[in-house]
Amino acid sequence: MSKWIGKVLFILISLFINSAFLGVIDNSIERFSYQTDSEDVVCHLPDNLVKEIAGYQPIVNKIINEITNGRFKGRTWDSLAELTDLFGPRMVCTDALEQAIDYVVESMKKGGLDNVHNENVSAPNWVRGFESAQLVRPWKKNMKLLGLGSTIGTIRGGIIADVIAVESFDEFNKIPDDQVKGKIVVFVPKWEGYEKTVVYRGNAASKASAKGAVAALVRSITPFSIGSPHTGHQSYADGIKQIPVAAITVEDAEMILRMYRRGQPITIHLEMSDFIKPNCISRNTIGELQGTSKYKDKSVVVVSGHLDSWDVGVGAMDDGGGSMISWKAIEFLRAMNLRPKRTIRAILWTSEEQGMVGAEQYMEAHKATEADEFNFFMESDIGTFEPQGLDFSGNADASCILKEILKLMTSINATQYREPTDGGPDISWWTVRGFPSASLINKNEKYFWFHHSDGDTMAVEDKDVLDKCTALWAAASYVIADLSINMPKNLVTN
Amino acid sequence: MSKWIGKVLFILISLFINSAFLGVIDNSIERFSYQTDSEDVVCHLPDNLVKEIAGYQPIVNKIINEITNGRFKGRTWDSLAELTDLFGPRMVCTDALEQAIDYVVESMKKGGLDNVHNENVSAPNWVRGFESAQLVRPWKKNMKLLGLGSTIGTIRGGIIADVIAVESFDEFNKIPDDQVKGKIVVFVPKWEGYEKTVVYRGNAASKASAKGAVAALVRSITPFSIGSPHTGHQSYADGIKQIPVAAITVEDAEMILRMYRRGQPITIHLEMSDFIKPNCISRNTIGELQGTSKYKDKSVVVVSGHLDSWDVGVGAMDDGGGSMISWKAIEFLRAMNLRPKRTIRAILWTSEEQGMVGAEQYMEAHKATEADEFNFFMESDIGTFEPQGLDFSGNADASCILKEILKLMTSINATQYREPTDGGPDISWWTVRGFPSASLINKNEKYFWFHHSDGDTMAVEDKDVLDKCTALWAAASYVIADLSINMPKNLVTN
Repeated sequence: MSKWIGKVLFILISLFINSAFLGVIDNSIERFSYQTDSEDVVCHLPDNLVKEIAGYQPIVNKIINEITNGRFKGRTWDSLAELTDLFGPRMVCTDALEQAIDYVVESMKKGGLDNVHNENVSAPNWVRGFESAQLVRPWKKNMKLLGLGSTIGTIRGGIIADVIAVESFDEFNKIPDDQVKGKIVVFVPKWEGYEKTVVYRGNAASKASAKGAVAALVRSITPFSIGSPHTGHQSYADGIKQIPVAAITVEDAEMILRMYRRGQPITIHLEMSDFIKPNCISRNTIGELQGTSKYKDKSVVVVSGHLDSWDVGVGAMDDGGGSMISWKAIEFLRAMNLRPKRTIRAILWTSEEQGMVGAEQYMEAHKATEADEFNFFMESDIGTFEPQGLDFSGNADASCILKEILKLMTSINATQYREPTDGGPDISWWTVRGFPSASLINKNEKYFWFHHSDGDTMAVEDKDVLDKCTALWAAASYVIADLSINMPKNLVTN
Repeated sequence: MSKWIGKVLFILISLFINSAFLGVIDNSIERFSYQTDSEDVVCHLPDNLVKEIAGYQPIVNKIINEITNGRFKGRTWDSLAELTDLFGPRMVCTDALEQAIDYVVESMKKGGLDNVHNENVSAPNWVRGFESAQLVRPWKKNMKLLGLGSTIGTIRGGIIADVIAVESFDEFNKIPDDQVKGKIVVFVPKWEGYEKTVVYRGNAASKASAKGAVAALVRSITPFSIGSPHTGHQSYADGIKQIPVAAITVEDAEMILRMYRRGQPITIHLEMSDFIKPNCISRNTIGELQGTSKYKDKSVVVVSGHLDSWDVGVGAMDDGGGSMISWKAIEFLRAMNLRPKRTIRAILWTSEEQGMVGAEQYMEAHKATEADEFNFFMESDIGTFEPQGLDFSGNADASCILKEILKLMTSINATQYREPTDGGPDISWWTVRGFPSASLINKNEKYFWFHHSDGDTMAVEDKDVLDKCTALWAAASYVIADLSINMPKNLVTN
């Protein structure tokens, strides 16, 4: 990956000699050079910059110690438990989310954060209605299901239809349309990692409808299940008749596939009253730890997660954890009287689950000033399990700086560096255009076990581990926001 | 444990000099002696017996090879998938179980087993009705729940009551009765292993009712959850007003406990129409591989599991797996033309989940002849994960013989020996009275993740692993049934 990134960066740098490469804040250093050798980026940071970063070790130790072992110990978990216990799941366009947003705003103000406010977002308003799937043949069973975000409902009283089951789109494409017409199609893809498997969730309805199916059911997108379905977003292809689509459990899906292949006739009664209402107004939630320099707002460091969740579980993991470490990182820094030169801005996005809607509208609203406004973006949205380091997207100079900063995180074993960012869907609106960014590397092998299901609760989150995530988040954002230089960037102008 | 067992055995032997100690079958060997040293049992089997057992290595290798790598490879899993896909869960007193029993009888006959028949059992007939639990305060949530076996229902329309939540009976005992009266009590015990934790499932209703509660909810008895409740049996104490009781998910229970301790008022609307009907007639299912000696039926080796299950998931693990390896072990031995001297009897118990009811009635029906009729009991009811060996209950001589037999199982790494039997609830009717017995040691650390929940499906079972379980089951039962001597036993007469 590094090789590829190196080449792309070289091309980008050749093309866009743009902008805020070394926006010096309080004191200046010489522009340093980087070079790519044949294998990988070799860092050639100026000695004084390396020394400057190493000089943050005492302050980083203090931050980490206060959060993991001092007066803030356990506070992140407790706050996340309080948030989720008070409001439950925070689906966009629900009162619960808006009440949670009000609560966060009030709490941020009480915590002494600066410039606490909301910015409005027009958000898709899909409503889960009554949902029921009953296996009628070969034997009766109430199947657990979750309609996928944006699905339409069935007719009142539901659909009773025979079932076709396939393991892949390839297998489905080979079935003649007349065998699909009027059927419910059950897609049972093998788990091959999220990126590869989630296309079945996204496209099942459109694929099935194109051949005349009346509904589609999809094996939940998870490597492991204990009888719970996993929801998520889907979208209809243009020009295709929209049909209802829902996730069923891994266990039921695999059973239906076996039954179908064995020749057992299968009939399902599917009833769903899901529907789409006009967009609602939701809100991104912003609180800041304002910087000390006069340029403080010209090069903001963003720490972020999304406050909205799906309507199952309570969204403690996706993405209560990422939201909470972003909020608490700056609350704890402030309580320690640690104000960096630049402003650190916590943004708790809304409507991420419908396609990073809150972040997109924030990006549009801030676009005119973005090159100056933003120094660095951080997002945690792929779990707050044991933190191991940060992954990064951006140019080679910024990469070298981040690697130096990560050397400070030895006391919590969070020194790993990877490219590109993996847990930053919301900030990808900026990442793709050359803004340097990082997301949280954590031991999240089980992330998709709980993802978008009733398993996404506080039981997933560990108190000490969450402290470490907040500590890393606070320490990294502090150093980046306090450095004598801006993070180098090569913006793609468009 | 060995020390303790040694002492108990010594006392038992001194007390009961009874019976079938060395019932010689075809040829005789001298009575061998054992002795306990200060630390553990030291085996002193006669050389010719040790040699005899070692002589089974080629036949054991053949059995294991044919089942794990030969013509029976994959057959156990396929048969279990067929059983569960054809009939679904096999709750006692349902048509599904009785149809499954008919199917097993027919299949056993087709498979050439001997003396295939049923023996009737009068079984408790608890019926799960409509079940619903809604968190009304502090926010609305449809909670997943499963009424516990034998629970009564609520009044029609349900109960709406405020909630008390406690972590232990100790904590609950300290709460004044007037604070409990009219409340729903939620018990949220920490997982401390099944034996210790399951008392909350068994006694929650009676404990809560004794202090005037109107219903009890219990954290599901599992160390790990992804949003699914786990059912199971409970019983009402004598003289206590019966109140409805159900299991809720670990996640909901822990959340409610936090809410309660935080002082958030909690209200739940609980509606259940569960009820008990008069007993039904169910059936134990028996098939045999009859022995070749004239004493074949005087010293039967029993291999067993229970065919009934709870009504959630499909009971593939509990105890489809144990039933299937018992059935297939003798079916495959017969297909290999391997008939031992004694009869191996596969018994697929019914109504285990209501308190080993099928096995109890079988025991009563066979009690007059049991000392002669049974040589050895095997049961698999604690998972059919990677097999590791056998655990044992019985006297020291039988223990020494089993240890020698286990040495034959190196090719599948299933040579472990432990005491006492852990996975033999049904056969415990005999084990407790001195009959030698064994159950399957397997890598079942995750057993309770799926136990009595919608997670108990074919997804839990692995094809190759199930072959190994059947192979161990077949090989061990074959050798025991073919040995020149009966397994020594010291029966407790009563």
